[in-house]
Amino acid sequence: MNTKMLRYTLGKMMGVEAYLLFLPAFIAVIYREEEGITFFLVSLLLIFIYFLFGRKKPANTTIYGKEGLFIAGMSWILWALFGALPFTLSGSIPNYLDALFETISGFTTTGSTILTDIDGLPRCMAFWRSLTHWIGGMGVLVFVMMVTSVGEKNSMHLMRAEMPGPEASKLVPKAKSTARILYLMYLALTAVEVVFLLFGKMNLFDAVLHAFSTAGTGGFSNHNASVAYYDSAYIDGVITVFMILFGINFNLYYFLLLTNVKEVLKNEELRVYLGVIAASVFVITFNIVDMYGSLLKAFRFASFQVASVITTTGFCTANYELWPELSKCILLIIMVIGACAGSTGGGMKISRVLILFKGIKREIVRMLHPQSVGVVRVNGKKVSKDTMESVYIYFICYVGILMMSVLLVSLDNKDFATTFSAVLTTLSNVGPGISQVGPVENFAFFSPFSKIVFCMDMLIGRLEIFPYLLLFSTSFSRRKF
Amino acid sequence: MNTKMLRYTLGKMMGVEAYLLFLPAFIAVIYREEEGITFFLVSLLLIFIYFLFGRKKPANTTIYGKEGLFIAGMSWILWALFGALPFTLSGSIPNYLDALFETISGFTTTGSTILTDIDGLPRCMAFWRSLTHWIGGMGVLVFVMMVTSVGEKNSMHLMRAEMPGPEASKLVPKAKSTARILYLMYLALTAVEVVFLLFGKMNLFDAVLHAFSTAGTGGFSNHNASVAYYDSAYIDGVITVFMILFGINFNLYYFLLLTNVKEVLKNEELRVYLGVIAASVFVITFNIVDMYGSLLKAFRFASFQVASVITTTGFCTANYELWPELSKCILLIIMVIGACAGSTGGGMKISRVLILFKGIKREIVRMLHPQSVGVVRVNGKKVSKDTMESVYIYFICYVGILMMSVLLVSLDNKDFATTFSAVLTTLSNVGPGISQVGPVENFAFFSPFSKIVFCMDMLIGRLEIFPYLLLFSTSFSRRKF
Repeated sequence: MNTKMLRYTLGKMMGVEAYLLFLPAFIAVIYREEEGITFFLVSLLLIFIYFLFGRKKPANTTIYGKEGLFIAGMSWILWALFGALPFTLSGSIPNYLDALFETISGFTTTGSTILTDIDGLPRCMAFWRSLTHWIGGMGVLVFVMMVTSVGEKNSMHLMRAEMPGPEASKLVPKAKSTARILYLMYLALTAVEVVFLLFGKMNLFDAVLHAFSTAGTGGFSNHNASVAYYDSAYIDGVITVFMILFGINFNLYYFLLLTNVKEVLKNEELRVYLGVIAASVFVITFNIVDMYGSLLKAFRFASFQVASVITTTGFCTANYELWPELSKCILLIIMVIGACAGSTGGGMKISRVLILFKGIKREIVRMLHPQSVGVVRVNGKKVSKDTMESVYIYFICYVGILMMSVLLVSLDNKDFATTFSAVLTTLSNVGPGISQVGPVENFAFFSPFSKIVFCMDMLIGRLEIFPYLLLFSTSFSRRKF
Repeated sequence: MNTKMLRYTLGKMMGVEAYLLFLPAFIAVIYREEEGITFFLVSLLLIFIYFLFGRKKPANTTIYGKEGLFIAGMSWILWALFGALPFTLSGSIPNYLDALFETISGFTTTGSTILTDIDGLPRCMAFWRSLTHWIGGMGVLVFVMMVTSVGEKNSMHLMRAEMPGPEASKLVPKAKSTARILYLMYLALTAVEVVFLLFGKMNLFDAVLHAFSTAGTGGFSNHNASVAYYDSAYIDGVITVFMILFGINFNLYYFLLLTNVKEVLKNEELRVYLGVIAASVFVITFNIVDMYGSLLKAFRFASFQVASVITTTGFCTANYELWPELSKCILLIIMVIGACAGSTGGGMKISRVLILFKGIKREIVRMLHPQSVGVVRVNGKKVSKDTMESVYIYFICYVGILMMSVLLVSLDNKDFATTFSAVLTTLSNVGPGISQVGPVENFAFFSPFSKIVFCMDMLIGRLEIFPYLLLFSTSFSRRKF
């Protein structure tokens, strides 16, 4: 392994985080909050680390797939470890483990919180909290790639670890340019959402924060009541639409820019994504209409919650904990499905679910006609055997990690719905679950051990399992398995 | 499809059930219960059907894999449909759907019950209920093959559908002889258990019934309190040991008969099976020791419940619903894992879980060393690519059907733990779940719709998913998918 290059790249990343911390510090200056000093302190520490490791480019810059995965895994952990410091140093979240949970929840765009009084948070802290979502959204590395420069030849390795979905596809030949294009579209969409929210009479600060959280499909709000705080059908509608937009594969926006509308319309993943949303909203609307009196109101709450959960954002406008079990189970299932590959959302991703379904179909055909050679196509493209198998393995790992985590968290002796949904929501990077971790609850009451399990689940979910499996695999340094 | 042969085979099977119904009728004569007449009536009906379809062997006796699967799927359904009649006709279970649920639960060796007063059941009915477990245990078809004679060349196709586990292996070249050997061992083990139970001062009737239910890994008892009724450490111990024995691959007993002890000891699946049991018992014992005061008592209850759940039997001696969440979650997880392939138990089967784990390991190696050609071995034998893939698909289907069923049962609006564990326990053919379907509860309160879902899950679980996927697949009669 090229350890010099690892140290160099990670050092560079610490430098990037140092810059990012200036943003909440700047917010602190505007609102004259003395907690802002902690951002400066941590930033200085990170600049020091950057000067130690991230300045001198090593002679050999070659990195391979496994090193890319290692960098991806480590950088999220390091960013979170340092990013949590301002919360604890300022006393906003006195317990460092809680602060770490919150920061990992931020960077992984999960949105689960241990805070019991969010409204009481200093503005600079609330800003940093939502900013972590925004940064996390497009992936620490895609971001870093745009700002710094790792050898172009190698950066696709990092890309593969970071880009959510079964197959990383390059929009344009060079990885760095891809990152830049994706990032610009991300920025533009976020800005448009801010404008729309301002029209709804949301103040600028709240609008920026909620746009950050929507864009990263994170879900942190600066109000305890989440988006329900505004009690506005317009704001609900805007956020619903933008959540759905941020759950779409960003490559499709690039096609739209190239005015290749046909390609977009016939995209299978997009169709299934919108189909699942439509079906879920339809069923839930009729399932909850008695609770809200009017069909329109039921539709408003159903669509917001469905969009929030399937895109793994985690905002809420209604306490779905009170909804009938059917609606809750639908939400739990779309929590697993997640958004489109290549979006900022978490979960399994629609395209993987599509591959799973088509794999089952092919197996049935093969049982009936052993001679048949079934080919699985997604979006019209043949899916290779290796990709199929890795999707199967991904799913098996997903369920396996879910079961192991449930076992570990069950030590806290909470009811099954709480334990199960807390693990599910963190592993899928959603945010809230059901029962004691329902939409109006938080994760504060869990034991430190469970919080560590959740932190790992959030990281594993965000980096799509494999990088962390490798990190913990003994074979990493030894050749023999 | 060879429909004549299908009709003939199914007709023959109805004839076999007619004979079986004489057994509870005979019990009714002994205990002078007038309900016994219903067994005669249904038996006459079945004999009539047998004479209609099952007498004349068609000229062309060739059947293929898909027809084998079809016969397997249909025969369980038909046996259950007729086997449920005596319960309803005698008024023991007035509602036919409930009776069907009970009979399917019997034949599939699940052991979930809708009865609220089991002790009040006539003895002939209780006998028939446990007998269905015993028959179900080795598979309707293996049984039928031994008694009747379908062409030897074809019967392996039926075998494959019926034998639980990822690969059907022939002990001796001829399928019919295999069935006979397996069946004799099954009979012998059952008889030994009866003797052991008699030593524990259990009366003969109860001993036979509990031996039937243990052998089939079913779990029906003729007492509301299940095995706890006897409150005897000896009886608990005997049943614990026999449950574990019936969860072992029957091929290994054949090796033991051939005094090939080495082969048995190095069997990987057996080792993992015993390892999982030991680990679960160990953790649960310490988890519940405070509740029972003594380590010995905790061990007694932990080992009984673990053996009962992992072998998917479903007897109980302790209300594990009151145990800490960790113990409950361990039980839920071993419920999914299940017993060894080639045993009478349900669930995923240890060998499949082994293949899943090794598949993950191979994928990690492949990610680190893309050139490596990892070979997965179970029990020292190479697992083919096709088998690997069908195990993956099996697991994906298992989880998919679990999720779909949870969604359907959630219409009943019970709490999540009830809904989830009820589906899990029926799909894995265990019996009890947690919360409202816990060990001292029953399935009576569910809606008719949910009961139908459970019936399907029990059948799907027992026949290991694929036959029923085929039954409901549209491509069955058309070539194009």
